[in-house]
Amino acid sequence: MSYTCFNAPLLGSLLGDAEIQSLFSVEADIAAMVRFECALANAEAACGVIPPEAADAIRLAAESFSPDISELGEAAARDGLVVPAFVRQLRAHVGDPHGCHVHFGATSQDVIDTSLILRLRDAAHVLLPRLAQLEKSLSTLERQFGERSLMAKTRMQSAVPVTVADRLRLWKEPVHQHQERLATLLPKVVRLQFGGAAGTLEKLGDDAEQVAHQLGDALDLPPSDGCWHTDRSGIADLAHWLSLVTGSLGKIGQDIALMAQNEVRTIAVRGTGGSSTMAHKQNPVKAEVLVALARFNAVLVSAIHQSMVHEQERSGAAWTLEWMTLPQMVIATGAATRTAVTLIHDIEAVGADALRG
Amino acid sequence: MSYTCFNAPLLGSLLGDAEIQSLFSVEADIAAMVRFECALANAEAACGVIPPEAADAIRLAAESFSPDISELGEAAARDGLVVPAFVRQLRAHVGDPHGCHVHFGATSQDVIDTSLILRLRDAAHVLLPRLAQLEKSLSTLERQFGERSLMAKTRMQSAVPVTVADRLRLWKEPVHQHQERLATLLPKVVRLQFGGAAGTLEKLGDDAEQVAHQLGDALDLPPSDGCWHTDRSGIADLAHWLSLVTGSLGKIGQDIALMAQNEVRTIAVRGTGGSSTMAHKQNPVKAEVLVALARFNAVLVSAIHQSMVHEQERSGAAWTLEWMTLPQMVIATGAATRTAVTLIHDIEAVGADALRG
Amino acid sequence: MSYTCFNAPLLGSLLGDAEIQSLFSVEADIAAMVRFECALANAEAACGVIPPEAADAIRLAAESFSPDISELGEAAARDGLVVPAFVRQLRAHVGDPHGCHVHFGATSQDVIDTSLILRLRDAAHVLLPRLAQLEKSLSTLERQFGERSLMAKTRMQSAVPVTVADRLRLWKEPVHQHQERLATLLPKVVRLQFGGAAGTLEKLGDDAEQVAHQLGDALDLPPSDGCWHTDRSGIADLAHWLSLVTGSLGKIGQDIALMAQNEVRTIAVRGTGGSSTMAHKQNPVKAEVLVALARFNAVLVSAIHQSMVHEQERSGAAWTLEWMTLPQMVIATGAATRTAVTLIHDIEAVGADALRG
Amino acid sequence: MSYTCFNAPLLGSLLGDAEIQSLFSVEADIAAMVRFECALANAEAACGVIPPEAADAIRLAAESFSPDISELGEAAARDGLVVPAFVRQLRAHVGDPHGCHVHFGATSQDVIDTSLILRLRDAAHVLLPRLAQLEKSLSTLERQFGERSLMAKTRMQSAVPVTVADRLRLWKEPVHQHQERLATLLPKVVRLQFGGAAGTLEKLGDDAEQVAHQLGDALDLPPSDGCWHTDRSGIADLAHWLSLVTGSLGKIGQDIALMAQNEVRTIAVRGTGGSSTMAHKQNPVKAEVLVALARFNAVLVSAIHQSMVHEQERSGAAWTLEWMTLPQMVIATGAATRTAVTLIHDIEAVGADALRG
Repeated sequence: MSYTCFNAPLLGSLLGDAEIQSLFSVEADIAAMVRFECALANAEAACGVIPPEAADAIRLAAESFSPDISELGEAAARDGLVVPAFVRQLRAHVGDPHGCHVHFGATSQDVIDTSLILRLRDAAHVLLPRLAQLEKSLSTLERQFGERSLMAKTRMQSAVPVTVADRLRLWKEPVHQHQERLATLLPKVVRLQFGGAAGTLEKLGDDAEQVAHQLGDALDLPPSDGCWHTDRSGIADLAHWLSLVTGSLGKIGQDIALMAQNEVRTIAVRGTGGSSTMAHKQNPVKAEVLVALARFNAVLVSAIHQSMVHEQERSGAAWTLEWMTLPQMVIATGAATRTAVTLIHDIEAVGADALRG
Repeated sequence: MSYTCFNAPLLGSLLGDAEIQSLFSVEADIAAMVRFECALANAEAACGVIPPEAADAIRLAAESFSPDISELGEAAARDGLVVPAFVRQLRAHVGDPHGCHVHFGATSQDVIDTSLILRLRDAAHVLLPRLAQLEKSLSTLERQFGERSLMAKTRMQSAVPVTVADRLRLWKEPVHQHQERLATLLPKVVRLQFGGAAGTLEKLGDDAEQVAHQLGDALDLPPSDGCWHTDRSGIADLAHWLSLVTGSLGKIGQDIALMAQNEVRTIAVRGTGGSSTMAHKQNPVKAEVLVALARFNAVLVSAIHQSMVHEQERSGAAWTLEWMTLPQMVIATGAATRTAVTLIHDIEAVGADALRG
Repeated sequence: MSYTCFNAPLLGSLLGDAEIQSLFSVEADIAAMVRFECALANAEAACGVIPPEAADAIRLAAESFSPDISELGEAAARDGLVVPAFVRQLRAHVGDPHGCHVHFGATSQDVIDTSLILRLRDAAHVLLPRLAQLEKSLSTLERQFGERSLMAKTRMQSAVPVTVADRLRLWKEPVHQHQERLATLLPKVVRLQFGGAAGTLEKLGDDAEQVAHQLGDALDLPPSDGCWHTDRSGIADLAHWLSLVTGSLGKIGQDIALMAQNEVRTIAVRGTGGSSTMAHKQNPVKAEVLVALARFNAVLVSAIHQSMVHEQERSGAAWTLEWMTLPQMVIATGAATRTAVTLIHDIEAVGADALRG
Repeated sequence: MSYTCFNAPLLGSLLGDAEIQSLFSVEADIAAMVRFECALANAEAACGVIPPEAADAIRLAAESFSPDISELGEAAARDGLVVPAFVRQLRAHVGDPHGCHVHFGATSQDVIDTSLILRLRDAAHVLLPRLAQLEKSLSTLERQFGERSLMAKTRMQSAVPVTVADRLRLWKEPVHQHQERLATLLPKVVRLQFGGAAGTLEKLGDDAEQVAHQLGDALDLPPSDGCWHTDRSGIADLAHWLSLVTGSLGKIGQDIALMAQNEVRTIAVRGTGGSSTMAHKQNPVKAEVLVALARFNAVLVSAIHQSMVHEQERSGAAWTLEWMTLPQMVIATGAATRTAVTLIHDIEAVGADALRG
């Protein structure tokens, strides 16, 4: 049992998601923060807040910026986040006379939240096609086996006969809906965070609105109606969506594990897992993993709701709790969608006569 | 410490909400179930599934139906829910020859879920005006004290001076957004549940769609595209919203408790609580209650997500877990909105000079 | 769906526990608080802190004390708890000149926590014999069916043949251990809470220790080494134990629901539940309820751990959160033990040949 | 925001714990599994179950065993865990004729659970001295500042004056108790897991008990009374303890953040964190981190309780959920103890006159 289940090498292929994880790597973190600082410098130059040459210098320096990661880590242990040291390093790298214009008017939370949002958008664009693929695979299954008979099960007991299509509809409909849900949700979550020290952009004076607008444009983030630094509802909306997705996939996984039982066998799946002692076993590993990931997110979503109690203009405690849990939820959802796509693809037959072909 | 905090008489006024609770009382439960069965009989009569006289008889009998509650309770202990006994009693009350047409083609989940949805809609109509009232009170406060100075606090430390209006905006914006969120959400959640034994309305044959349509019309519930008995996403959406609301109000509560500290006093509130030992104490009880309710819902929302893993065509375990937690979340949100409205109304002054008037 | 699942009349017999609930009723609440105040008066009289006649008067008045519950409720909405109004009423009932000696030196938390502890002890004494009974019933089952064959199931697949006794041991061992766990735990949890306004018994001066000792003796509560008002570890230990019990019973319930599947039938149980539509169904309702109760407590235990962050000398927010969840956990454990005893008793046969008798 | 908060390099120094993490590294994982297999071979050779030469060959080969980690990872994605591939690789490395004796009679869960337990014991031995150190530092603080005056705060309001020692006692007592709790708990949790395919050691026949005894001796793990593969109570006991510890430290953190407020200043702490915008800020970062870690574990403990519902002879879903959460809880507790030790050490003064020296 390694300390993070998502990490390569041991359990990463089972419980992680390389594509999503790359969005939350240190490199991606740094790159997104640099992207923010460059876009900010451009926006401020365009509004006459800092000299145009400063923005040029910052952009140029950013290309060759390779932060001292170890020093960032040490500073984070003191400051509670990497931004102060990151800004210091970037300023030093830009050098005189323009370095001092880096990060002007912004605060740590602007950098971290915006950088998070940029990557959550990327993550959404990884997850959505997987859900579409899953929906398509379920439709294919329905075309292949939909008319076969299946005994409906309510409260774990045989109820009345239905068709395979009836059960597949219960799997497919939420997968379809979750795509629509995200499409509705995303524009509300994907917003610029830009508020300065206490949310009022006090250093930018009358230029504040225009800088925010330009900055949002550069990052393709619609300007938010005021900053949302203490209102984590959007983050919670997304966390909720993640847990809905894993919940619906967990339901599919639970069903498959039940259908694959030796006495039931209303499903046949390729590529099941082996045992260290029993050569005959065909363990529905992927189905079980979907259940575990569902229950995992169902637990972690509570942390995101706890972090809604975000006192005053910035809560270090609530915000840190969010950092500790949200990326894990995204990755777990990555793992669940990845696993579900494969699992459904591996289904060879469904229905009362699954094994008779 | 009584076994339910919501109940009158001891802590009900503090932590409960009489208006919301009345929607989840036994009487409301029974009334909603009776309403479903009458609407179903009407719909089935209109579609020629049962004789028109049967529908008339059922409607008439329903008016004088007074179930044997104690027998329902005993039956629930055996059957896991009250519907089988409820239907038996209602059939007996209607009597021959029409009693047998009660509940035709429906299943327990149709009755319980639809009856729940009807009352969740009612609850939304209780909560929404309170949020509107709260938003209005916050606007009033802003007009009164918005220009006063306040020291912004980040990470529990003084940051930069802002105005009272700046902090009030952080309180008000989520309250505003949550109303919009619910308006978007409600039409997706407020849907008829009607699927019969296993979700396929197998007893209604070709009349199924038409009966569903008529039934939905009668209850003012738009027909759902297929029944959602195993897809609890809509329920979870609502639970999430409830916890968002209590979370945002918990943030306000936490802020007020911090502002009311003796050394800080940037807020003055009427009607604070007394102590059994210290006559001088002015405890920010309502503010603390908002924090407690936020953390309570943030915990319970996890149960709703756990119950997404709803195996096969109906999970007794997952569904029961939902029963045990969802109504509590609605009431907690009722208590939080009720408390927040009073608390904001009781604010006498805000700002650095709160006590100087 | 009523607002509290524990309450009679609809779901109380399914999900509640009358015996445990009686310990957390308003009457029990009041009685325990009165008991505390009388014992305190006696202890203080014995130590010369209040006149002996005052203690006599308080004891005598307590016998006829019938508080104005409605007024207590109103006061709780203001004060955050009932104690200030309760003490006022009791003082008034005792009347001059002794009324003023009621509650001397104590604080609300002393009354509420101690009254809780007294009832948690009572609850333990309800739960323990049930676990013993359950263990005994499992032993009886083992004697009856232990030698029969059963296919072990790992990861939802057939593994190797074992005996019924092997599986029953997995059910019984935790039930046995939980009794031992509670025996070890109880003496550490069942402690007097007595600290006065801020935990220092500042009004009692040098008499503090002796009064605490006498008070503890009178309530049969060992004196705690200092008061534990902000250290909720003992409460959390008990909550953890409650969730362990429901977890282990949930495992039994999950196993039985799986064994009772129509295709598996390695268990035969009497008294299963009926359906409103399908006369043939034999729903393993009690087994499912055990799973639901396990997942319920597994969620609520998080609230108790959240309430460990109990700021300064008393946190209204954290303490209120505890009130909202702990009694529910005790009742859920009551319901689970009650249900498990019946369910195991209703088992007619276990093993590969369960239905052949 | 990186995908794991514990990882170096960005937030690892803030939220992680290198010492604890090393116990849950891939290397430590492999080493503990190899240790198990060697001890098993020795035990089986000593009992005549496998040839003594086989045990010698296995031990010898183990010294030079360097598994193909990438292949293990791929296999885990299929098998749900690494053990089948690990055993295959180790057998191949031992080679003919002795390789086939590796892992004889054991199952994956024996290897993984026992390897976990060995490392949880090591983790306990890291955490205990830190708690002892913390207790000692608190005693030192008490000697330095204990007699100073402090205003007790109940419900966020000034209550009555106490001394610094009074508050420090509320911090110290739980830290002391948690050490005793663990000492009581550890012998019950630190137990061999050894059950074979379905918990019955069916391949070992009459030698089972003796092999288990020898194996336990070699690993210094007392034999468990039967294997506990489906009873996760011991794991849950430990997870509960971890969350108690972080909860009590979170309370200290919350207190310090409140005491360090600019208007309050009843504590002075060295080494507070800086801001990216406000040079004057002295953020109580460590105090906030303690709160975040407390709430994190308070959330994750729910997952461990959910995984108590461990169906039949082995639940892939429940077990995987445990893997995803338990190591994180241990590391969070590592981070909290590490942080608390530093934070308390950095306190320069406490009391009403903290800043006057």
